[in-house]
Amino acid sequence: MTVELIREEDLKRLEEYVTETSVEVEGVLDKIIPAPSEDEESRLFEAMRYSVFSGGKRLRPVLLMATNDIFGGSRDHAARVAAAIESLHTYSLVHDDLPCMDDDDLRRGKPTCHKQFDEVTAVLAGDALQTLAFDIMSDERTHPQGRIRANLVSSLAKASGAQGMVGGQMIDMLAEDIDELDQGALARLQRKKTGALFSACCECGLILNEDRVKASDRMHLMNYARNIGLAFQMVDDILDEIGNEDEVGKRVRKDAERGKATFASLLGVEGAQNQARMLCEQAIQNLTHYGPKADILRILAQFVVARGH
Amino acid sequence: MTVELIREEDLKRLEEYVTETSVEVEGVLDKIIPAPSEDEESRLFEAMRYSVFSGGKRLRPVLLMATNDIFGGSRDHAARVAAAIESLHTYSLVHDDLPCMDDDDLRRGKPTCHKQFDEVTAVLAGDALQTLAFDIMSDERTHPQGRIRANLVSSLAKASGAQGMVGGQMIDMLAEDIDELDQGALARLQRKKTGALFSACCECGLILNEDRVKASDRMHLMNYARNIGLAFQMVDDILDEIGNEDEVGKRVRKDAERGKATFASLLGVEGAQNQARMLCEQAIQNLTHYGPKADILRILAQFVVARGH
Repeated sequence: MTVELIREEDLKRLEEYVTETSVEVEGVLDKIIPAPSEDEESRLFEAMRYSVFSGGKRLRPVLLMATNDIFGGSRDHAARVAAAIESLHTYSLVHDDLPCMDDDDLRRGKPTCHKQFDEVTAVLAGDALQTLAFDIMSDERTHPQGRIRANLVSSLAKASGAQGMVGGQMIDMLAEDIDELDQGALARLQRKKTGALFSACCECGLILNEDRVKASDRMHLMNYARNIGLAFQMVDDILDEIGNEDEVGKRVRKDAERGKATFASLLGVEGAQNQARMLCEQAIQNLTHYGPKADILRILAQFVVARGH
Repeated sequence: MTVELIREEDLKRLEEYVTETSVEVEGVLDKIIPAPSEDEESRLFEAMRYSVFSGGKRLRPVLLMATNDIFGGSRDHAARVAAAIESLHTYSLVHDDLPCMDDDDLRRGKPTCHKQFDEVTAVLAGDALQTLAFDIMSDERTHPQGRIRANLVSSLAKASGAQGMVGGQMIDMLAEDIDELDQGALARLQRKKTGALFSACCECGLILNEDRVKASDRMHLMNYARNIGLAFQMVDDILDEIGNEDEVGKRVRKDAERGKATFASLLGVEGAQNQARMLCEQAIQNLTHYGPKADILRILAQFVVARGH
């Protein structure tokens, strides 16, 4: 992948936006996750903090905050919702890394949670990070209207449960020895495993601004989210194929070693790159009506395809 | 334990109430958890169903429904909330039984989820059952008012997260080799690990009826819940000490084998029985104002102390 698609000034603008968003979202999480203390269960809080504050890309928070910005919603409310989604995303990484799942030692360049602590602590930290997501969303500080809080919870629960993310992970684990997954089956897996949460980010941004959001806005932004979700997964597969562990921050070529079908193995690296680029263009076409207000989402779509990690 | 505290006609009445409640709650869960299908992730749905429909005592649903009955709330709404809490409770059992946690082979007289399926499926089924709880609670069918739905989510999340149930499980796992836990530390552990969810059942029953509930009702019913939660744990410890595996439906004497402090080891079996009986009496004293409307909660408190499994 090259960065030729993304201008340097745009990349700089996105980086500033990511930094600003990270500071806001991490500020929320820092206040909410109990600090290590003399309590016996302090190890749990430590493991939650270790996993959440491990320097992730914060793509999902950025997606949510930038959607919210288009409609002029409160950034304080959106930062809390973004913190909830990041907490949920982190739980899924902690559990996916477990020995019985992907058995990974490295995540974002650091030991995975069960390596740094132990398996018991990782299972429980994951469990508690999931609960925390719903705790944050249902809190009055997240939005004054109860109906909006309940709709946020509902959106996240549907995206991440048995018929969304966890269902996708189940398919993925069962597909370990299946190399005959075709592109349709792989796209279905991806839609559930990673796509659903990307879509929930945009959906939550819309829910927060429901007074101002029209049906056509919903259609455009959900299309945008679906396209960049799929493009993101394709690039992930490419990086797994051609990336280097130091840059990517996690073990690479593990799918190939396990003989698992990926977009890179099915379409070839170049084919997957072309398809990801096409998806990114389709994503951007959905933003035509929003002018400069959608600049961050536009640059984000380019970044998803151009990123090296 | 003897059943001398509980009259036969009362036991029959409770049994009928439990059956009625179980039918309602299981009806909700049966409709909501996807049926096994041709989908690749069907194994996940199977494992969720296997764990949820395994003939539990449904104590938590009964506690919630009977609290709701005192104030005359809709049984349809309450059955959905009870289904959510039972789903969350089931997730905690599935994860507690995992090899890295309590490593149990038997639950409710049947193979535990990871024995019947495998570890991956058990982790994911537990994860999805937790999500399902919040999915159900935030759904419009659970209550027409968004604020009430959000408050239900919040109550359950606080009871079950890092500062409640999961925190309690962390303390419990860390205490494996500590036999010097005193009664205060043990009570703190229990308050988090099992007590918080008992309390959330009563709290959710109050939230569903907030128009009719006074501050004094809240005080009485939360006291009731705290007392029977603690009594329940004491009896659990006694059954672990003196029960027989066939009757109890799970491995017994595991705490003693691990040298773990329990209420039975700290107070002696008789001492723990006496204390449980006292807590049950205190629980019942909180129901004085409610006359026959609180009969089921009264009998339930007696049953908690008198039960043989």
